[in-house]
Amino acid sequence: MAKEVLVVGAGFGGLEAARALAAGGDVHVTVVDQRNHHLFQPLLYQVATAGLNPADIAVPIRAQFSRAPNVDVRLGRVAAVDLGRKRVSLEDGTELAWDFLVVAGGAQHSYFGHPEWEEFAPGLKTLEQATEIRRRLLSAFESAENEPDPAAQRRLLTFVIVGGGPTGVELAGAIADISRTVLVRDFRRIDPASARVLLLEAGPRILPAFAEDLSRHAAEDLRALGVEVRTSAAVTGIDAHGVSIGGERIEARSIFWAAGVQASSLSRSLGVELDRAGRVMVDADLSIPGHPDAFVIGDMAHLEEPERGLVPGLAPAAIQEGKAAARNILASIAGRPRKPFRYRDKGMMATIGKHRAIAQTGPIRLTGFLAWLAWLFIHILYLIGFKNRLSVFAQWVWSYVLSKRGARLITNRDWRLPS
Amino acid sequence: MAKEVLVVGAGFGGLEAARALAAGGDVHVTVVDQRNHHLFQPLLYQVATAGLNPADIAVPIRAQFSRAPNVDVRLGRVAAVDLGRKRVSLEDGTELAWDFLVVAGGAQHSYFGHPEWEEFAPGLKTLEQATEIRRRLLSAFESAENEPDPAAQRRLLTFVIVGGGPTGVELAGAIADISRTVLVRDFRRIDPASARVLLLEAGPRILPAFAEDLSRHAAEDLRALGVEVRTSAAVTGIDAHGVSIGGERIEARSIFWAAGVQASSLSRSLGVELDRAGRVMVDADLSIPGHPDAFVIGDMAHLEEPERGLVPGLAPAAIQEGKAAARNILASIAGRPRKPFRYRDKGMMATIGKHRAIAQTGPIRLTGFLAWLAWLFIHILYLIGFKNRLSVFAQWVWSYVLSKRGARLITNRDWRLPS
Repeated sequence: MAKEVLVVGAGFGGLEAARALAAGGDVHVTVVDQRNHHLFQPLLYQVATAGLNPADIAVPIRAQFSRAPNVDVRLGRVAAVDLGRKRVSLEDGTELAWDFLVVAGGAQHSYFGHPEWEEFAPGLKTLEQATEIRRRLLSAFESAENEPDPAAQRRLLTFVIVGGGPTGVELAGAIADISRTVLVRDFRRIDPASARVLLLEAGPRILPAFAEDLSRHAAEDLRALGVEVRTSAAVTGIDAHGVSIGGERIEARSIFWAAGVQASSLSRSLGVELDRAGRVMVDADLSIPGHPDAFVIGDMAHLEEPERGLVPGLAPAAIQEGKAAARNILASIAGRPRKPFRYRDKGMMATIGKHRAIAQTGPIRLTGFLAWLAWLFIHILYLIGFKNRLSVFAQWVWSYVLSKRGARLITNRDWRLPS
Repeated sequence: MAKEVLVVGAGFGGLEAARALAAGGDVHVTVVDQRNHHLFQPLLYQVATAGLNPADIAVPIRAQFSRAPNVDVRLGRVAAVDLGRKRVSLEDGTELAWDFLVVAGGAQHSYFGHPEWEEFAPGLKTLEQATEIRRRLLSAFESAENEPDPAAQRRLLTFVIVGGGPTGVELAGAIADISRTVLVRDFRRIDPASARVLLLEAGPRILPAFAEDLSRHAAEDLRALGVEVRTSAAVTGIDAHGVSIGGERIEARSIFWAAGVQASSLSRSLGVELDRAGRVMVDADLSIPGHPDAFVIGDMAHLEEPERGLVPGLAPAAIQEGKAAARNILASIAGRPRKPFRYRDKGMMATIGKHRAIAQTGPIRLTGFLAWLAWLFIHILYLIGFKNRLSVFAQWVWSYVLSKRGARLITNRDWRLPS
């Protein structure tokens, strides 16, 4: 009788684990996700800035397993995980039993103990959030065009991005780019190019995960795009009309959150040891200490490699962990010993505006246009299973050559900003 | 000093009028719309059935006039039109003065005095409605997959489309098609092909605007796709769990409205003579009787041509009226006489499922695959100004050859149907 493996979450890690398990042998896999689509998160900022359509970076989870009869996909939200009874209960009341469990719930935004900031400063983790940011971004220009009062117009044309990591950098660069190249032709009363884009980073430099010279490079590229890069600028307050940095006040109607992340709240329901970011402390084989049949991977897992430190919260790491967890499950079923997970660092990259980026992998460091080409190539390459990989590429070429954006839609009927 | 022409609504008619005016001479044009995009409505059902992305059939209105310095685009909702003082006031309080007015507010759904039906049976006029229908359609299959009770499962897999006009026929055909070809591979517990699709028409035949043999043909094609076509079936009740046809009850969780339309409620604010569908009775030159500087076009206009009858509510008619209104305005400014509008009948077509259609233009009548090719060609051709015309075509070829649907997204976080 085939073992039942339950995979919670169909992000990079969960999807990879389910694929490897489905191919690997005599198991039945159930994939549970609260959404019907897998999301290519690295390109989410492109949806938020009207460069791509939601469907360009999302694929139905079911479609990934059409040809895998031993995989069930179930749309639902996990309410609780019972490691002892080996059960997972969904919010709709159903209970799912498992022999092996892979928890891959990913990360969510952390507002550093200020949940009330979220409504004023949406984050960028889901398609809904991306289209909401797109709506606010485009609506701000529309409202400014209709606004007679110059001061109010300024506030509408001031965009604050909180957090100088890759997401914040890519968002800030894209917003500066769209306002200076795409929208500039379309308005009569306002000059979109005069839009003020601020990137606020609490630490001493943006992109701290990158080498120092690369983050300096990125900051210069951002400034060249017209982004005001502010480091050592910790936000102390956010409301509907602006942000506070200690005593300083910045009036802005559009504030986007790209700062802290924490593990999915699912981790707390496990009742096991977590780190400060809510990640589960896992053993070298990615299983939960004391629960050898329950694995945690991706942004929910905290794994310290001897001499090599913490495995970073990146897509490649999640994919590798998904594969490794599947391998260890299949090994246990076959009575073979498990292998400790070993992270192969593929490097990191971040894009700045339309045709610049930074990339580092081991000793190799790229900047500028060359890095952007590398970024483009790798992201197109990794849009595996996304039928519209080519259409995505075509849309980029289009927007790159003609400075147009195909997805400039405000599809929320009430397009006005809350006043 | 250039005359001010105010165009209300950027549908087919309003956009065409604004284009012709902008090109035509010494006028300043202001286009007001409550949305930031022009919508290619004939393909809306493709978005509702996950065949196309919203951005594929919508273009930013501003982008249409980037190179027309004498055209202003203003996002806003018209609260009232004052024909006497020649003013239009927007909901945000601003007043716009005009020398000439073109009212092109289009049509909205009519629930025959049962507005309470709308929440249970959304219509298909906007992108929001299309994605809402897409969400309900895809969520119904997901809920059915999770539903243990066979009777409840049946209700979830029963789809009722009310109204046998082109929209209803295209929607019913596409839903039957997606359930039998696209989704059929993806589920384990349910058989999507067993989904029940009903098309309810109150009149004696579907597509009454077409020749009788063509609508018979369409009905046969629909039945071949597995659609239950019911004529002389007037809906007398709609709630969250089904529809009533007189004494008969049909249990269904998904009901979509494609029946009556009426002119935009804007027409009532004009204080002029309307027909029973709320359309403005216009003179032969498309102006409002007694208000020679105010024109009404498209689905809001009621124009009876001598010997030829009522101009139909079709995109080609709206486009022709937009051109004609613009010409008459420019004529008046130049002191030339106006010309009465004359409708050039381009014919009609409706598509049934993935590769069948019916078309009639004058004596010519097409059915089946040939008609579908004609339909495809004309719709691609008319996606003028839509940069993604080719990508749309590519997506059709894709879905036609591989029976896939690229846009199968449930992007409303709460994917469950209201219970």
